[in-house]
Amino acid sequence: MHFASLLAALLQAAAPAVPAMPVPAASAADPVEADWRTIPDDELLVMTLAGDRRVVIRLAPRYAPVHVDNLRKLARARWWDGASVYRVQDNYVAQWGDVTEKKPLPAGIIANPPPEYVGTPYDAVTKMTRRDPYAANSGHSADGWPVAGDGKGAWLTHCYAMVGVGRDMAPSTGSGAELYAVIGHAPRHLDRNIALVGRVVEGIEHLSSLPRGTGNMGFYAPGEAPTSILSVRLASELPAATRPRLQYRAADNVRFAAWVKGRENREPPFFTVPAGGADICNAMPPIRRAPAK
Amino acid sequence: MHFASLLAALLQAAAPAVPAMPVPAASAADPVEADWRTIPDDELLVMTLAGDRRVVIRLAPRYAPVHVDNLRKLARARWWDGASVYRVQDNYVAQWGDVTEKKPLPAGIIANPPPEYVGTPYDAVTKMTRRDPYAANSGHSADGWPVAGDGKGAWLTHCYAMVGVGRDMAPSTGSGAELYAVIGHAPRHLDRNIALVGRVVEGIEHLSSLPRGTGNMGFYAPGEAPTSILSVRLASELPAATRPRLQYRAADNVRFAAWVKGRENREPPFFTVPAGGADICNAMPPIRRAPAK
Repeated sequence: MHFASLLAALLQAAAPAVPAMPVPAASAADPVEADWRTIPDDELLVMTLAGDRRVVIRLAPRYAPVHVDNLRKLARARWWDGASVYRVQDNYVAQWGDVTEKKPLPAGIIANPPPEYVGTPYDAVTKMTRRDPYAANSGHSADGWPVAGDGKGAWLTHCYAMVGVGRDMAPSTGSGAELYAVIGHAPRHLDRNIALVGRVVEGIEHLSSLPRGTGNMGFYAPGEAPTSILSVRLASELPAATRPRLQYRAADNVRFAAWVKGRENREPPFFTVPAGGADICNAMPPIRRAPAK
Repeated sequence: MHFASLLAALLQAAAPAVPAMPVPAASAADPVEADWRTIPDDELLVMTLAGDRRVVIRLAPRYAPVHVDNLRKLARARWWDGASVYRVQDNYVAQWGDVTEKKPLPAGIIANPPPEYVGTPYDAVTKMTRRDPYAANSGHSADGWPVAGDGKGAWLTHCYAMVGVGRDMAPSTGSGAELYAVIGHAPRHLDRNIALVGRVVEGIEHLSSLPRGTGNMGFYAPGEAPTSILSVRLASELPAATRPRLQYRAADNVRFAAWVKGRENREPPFFTVPAGGADICNAMPPIRRAPAK
């Protein structure tokens, strides 16, 4: 028996008895397979726009539980079906819901939830090297959310593709029926002033490339057609075969920390001056489609 | 004679003899008329896309003189006429020029200018209250550019709508034939690594709302149509009646400083928690169309 064949036979024989060796990361900043964690089906909201454009939102129930509970009820009541994206303001937000703001809310919706703007405790497991103008600390929660904080409270940050709740003047917090996604430079001044409820993790381009509204604040003017929303569903409501299967990269490991350092210090041959820092919105946790089983 | 009529008569009589009283600003952060300065015609580049979509770029010759000289020569040679926007990467850049990269450059173009990434001296006349992760200092030059610096050198910042020069790996700096505009969150890690040559001051939405390319890095894949560039001209080359007449808001005055403070501390009734700071890309100098004479 050749040595290679012998080795293969031994390995095969040993396979059931010992755990599979993890595939090592190619570099210190690369994930291993176990770093990818599947997002639960009831934390994914699937919005289908006219033209079969699919936008998938990861919900953040840990940060805004009452608002997210409203969103789930609105989806289950099919409240957004037939609604529209009625406001697209360049370098700011795309907003959707019921443009008339007159459609009755389903039973069980809390019309004005508590201001779920700042939670406790501050649970970031990474720390950006330098502070930004908006918070003493910023980093990533273990489950892949961008967070800022002051050592006590934590809040999600208004980065590109984050989803927030449209509201009237304070103390209104908004029910969640009217939502927006950030489609420009991060409007971090909104942090702690508005409820963030999730992040577009697939299909943000279907919102960011929509025609801008020419009305006040980017609302569509008469004659400009809003984009129709065909349906909004929790992934858990969809047939299994059509559910998005998405994974976030867990942040509670040395590989992720090395990845953050890499974002802060871009490398030659393209870069000649590493910044030595980055803002949290330039270090958004990677998301991927789950590999085929 | 009534007092009001008398006053009016006196004022009228006195008018030619004394300078007109400046109209006072409505609030400490509002500009007076003299704060608006007209951008010279040879510092405006007018790009017309198919469908008569006009994009106007303010050039920054103080910061990147050799590159801007190239741009002016390219425009005068009509080099970009018939070129295209061939790359649109979501949350990053829209890029245009000659997708083949084989079209010969006009005579007099410096194919690889010096790296005009950092200039001296640092000339900001405002100072953002808090530092950001990318630079010790940031603020505005008197003539309305967003700048960062370390107390010695100054550099333009990669904010939304800023225009930079596509290049190959360092030490290439790019001729300026291939340009990009930022259409997403500010990629500030590019600061000091790439030449910024201007800012889109009108019509950025014609670039930011283009369909995203599905090829690598947002290049259009086969079957995806690039957007044709009909012409690129310096405003000074256009008939006077069709020139854009744009003005920036000068930053070297107390009113602008008060405006910056307002950007850093948003006010009730919408905002309940002022940030106490802002990053330079959320305080871009206002631009307006010159009022009709």
